[in-house]
Amino acid sequence: MRRSIRSAILSGPTNFRAHFGGLQLASEFDLIAQCFAPLAGPEGLGLKDDAALFQPNPGTELVYTVDAMASGVHFLPDEAPELVAKRLIRVNISDLAAKGAKPRGYLLTIALPHDLDIAWVQAFAEGLGEDQEAYGFKVIGGDTISTPGPLVLSLMAIGEVRQGRMIRRAGAQAGDDLYVTGTIGDAAFGLEVTKGTHQSASEADKAYLEGRFRLPTPRLSFGQMLATEAIATAAADVSDGLLADAGHIGIASGLDIEVNAGSIPLSDPARRIVASDNRLADAITGGDDYEIVFSAPADCRQMINTASVKQGLPATRIGRVVETLGDKPAVRLIGEDGAAIQLEHLGYRHR
Amino acid sequence: MRRSIRSAILSGPTNFRAHFGGLQLASEFDLIAQCFAPLAGPEGLGLKDDAALFQPNPGTELVYTVDAMASGVHFLPDEAPELVAKRLIRVNISDLAAKGAKPRGYLLTIALPHDLDIAWVQAFAEGLGEDQEAYGFKVIGGDTISTPGPLVLSLMAIGEVRQGRMIRRAGAQAGDDLYVTGTIGDAAFGLEVTKGTHQSASEADKAYLEGRFRLPTPRLSFGQMLATEAIATAAADVSDGLLADAGHIGIASGLDIEVNAGSIPLSDPARRIVASDNRLADAITGGDDYEIVFSAPADCRQMINTASVKQGLPATRIGRVVETLGDKPAVRLIGEDGAAIQLEHLGYRHR
Repeated sequence: MRRSIRSAILSGPTNFRAHFGGLQLASEFDLIAQCFAPLAGPEGLGLKDDAALFQPNPGTELVYTVDAMASGVHFLPDEAPELVAKRLIRVNISDLAAKGAKPRGYLLTIALPHDLDIAWVQAFAEGLGEDQEAYGFKVIGGDTISTPGPLVLSLMAIGEVRQGRMIRRAGAQAGDDLYVTGTIGDAAFGLEVTKGTHQSASEADKAYLEGRFRLPTPRLSFGQMLATEAIATAAADVSDGLLADAGHIGIASGLDIEVNAGSIPLSDPARRIVASDNRLADAITGGDDYEIVFSAPADCRQMINTASVKQGLPATRIGRVVETLGDKPAVRLIGEDGAAIQLEHLGYRHR
Repeated sequence: MRRSIRSAILSGPTNFRAHFGGLQLASEFDLIAQCFAPLAGPEGLGLKDDAALFQPNPGTELVYTVDAMASGVHFLPDEAPELVAKRLIRVNISDLAAKGAKPRGYLLTIALPHDLDIAWVQAFAEGLGEDQEAYGFKVIGGDTISTPGPLVLSLMAIGEVRQGRMIRRAGAQAGDDLYVTGTIGDAAFGLEVTKGTHQSASEADKAYLEGRFRLPTPRLSFGQMLATEAIATAAADVSDGLLADAGHIGIASGLDIEVNAGSIPLSDPARRIVASDNRLADAITGGDDYEIVFSAPADCRQMINTASVKQGLPATRIGRVVETLGDKPAVRLIGEDGAAIQLEHLGYRHR
């Protein structure tokens, strides 16, 4: 293995580092450039310069987020390339959504394995194109490299918010309500279905859950509303797990978070699994929900309810922000009896 | 292999996707977060939010560039982690330099192999810290993921230029002079030394060339001067090879480029190799020089000479920009006799 990695560097000083749209690159890299060039916004200068040139809109601040994914780790190696593309875009859009930002553009890095088919890249670019259109932003730059390992993708998204309006994690106040959009746990159970390890659910339930895992729906317009109307005092997207991400808000704000176990919003398919297999803990620690967990003052309840109805997206009050009881901020799951429920861990750990 | 990649996804829905500074992550990822958090600028919000918040300076435009590197492809697997970090920063700084931009911040993606040592990451972060200080910018965000393959790094750099002052590739005019900074070919020969395939040079020459390959020096202040003084009509950094990158300017500007073979600036060690082994072609197609190739009107000659003396950096007039002779823009290497020299290729191809 080491020998073959070493021999890879022998092919040339710059090897096949390829800027999209570059000259004198390999034919397959030219093909790749041809896949991405039509997706480029004007800021990308046709992906033919050393850099993109970007003019922020007056009165806005820029918000940056980056998420990477590796084949076999964040998606199954045989996942459809269009879905890999959309998932990559959407996990980043979800971060922008939680900050109340509007997508403006993105840069993309692709580390291609030697045996990857150009057809894969073409289908991947098609997926990007569809979601670019859907979310109203465009690629402005990128880099393609080759790797002896599996496919690794990295996307850096640029969003904008009105100056001073980005919703941070650190703004929660004691006494605030805690909310979450949509439903929680679908993706955790959906991954089990995708892997073939979940048996008990009906075929219809499995299809629903798998869809929620494979193609998340970030809550972009809801997040923008939370910022524009200055409703949320703090927000995070639910990627690590509801309790873990609520905890992120608590830690950043220096306060405790209480989440009521009985209030967690569940889809009907997830509710059936939670009820029959007693798996609430997996739903609220599983992650990949790409909902928004946020805090807001109690006098915003009517406003949130109206916005939720208007957008057709549930926003469920699931707990509250309180003064820290212990030495450091903590998140507590509260049972029907008002007592804290002990969980082994709050979100996913590397193991 | 496929089986082991598949099994990696079984460990959890979000697996170990880790935002720097995140909560409830694996201990090794916490350690990694601890390596990077001290490097963060205020825009990075301590690397503890979902996104970075960035306020462009008034009257500036933002310039973005991204470069990725894989172990065994862009650097040898046993390269010192500090040098890997600095090389990653500098190849990006070089793109900003060619555009006349000032570095403002960067985002970083690290795909870590399972067996990578935390000590490697710590040393890598130290290298980043030193070059951050040297180039006056800071990390504002990032993502760490795990990969069953080799280390893959991606850095997205943000720079700023005064509005309308970015030097594009597309601005060259017929009649412009063509220049390049520094010396060309050191990195191409330095790579051979690093790989142990170059024998003929003296030990002192080998040490010089290897140093030029392993730790490039992007021409940041020279590039900024070219933009501030509105000297350059077009510029590119020399990463793919002098002829290829000069060709990028020609293609973008719709003009031919003529490069005089006798004018290529060579360091003494490179000159000795070129002279004894007849290897000029390798010097000008080898790449990784990270110099700036640029076009400028003839009436800027005195200004460029003065700037070059002031900065202590040679800027050599190596050719000119002319109307296109053929169907499409081309780059020609011109011999002492004024006739074009045919080369097999202009820059590195994937093979």
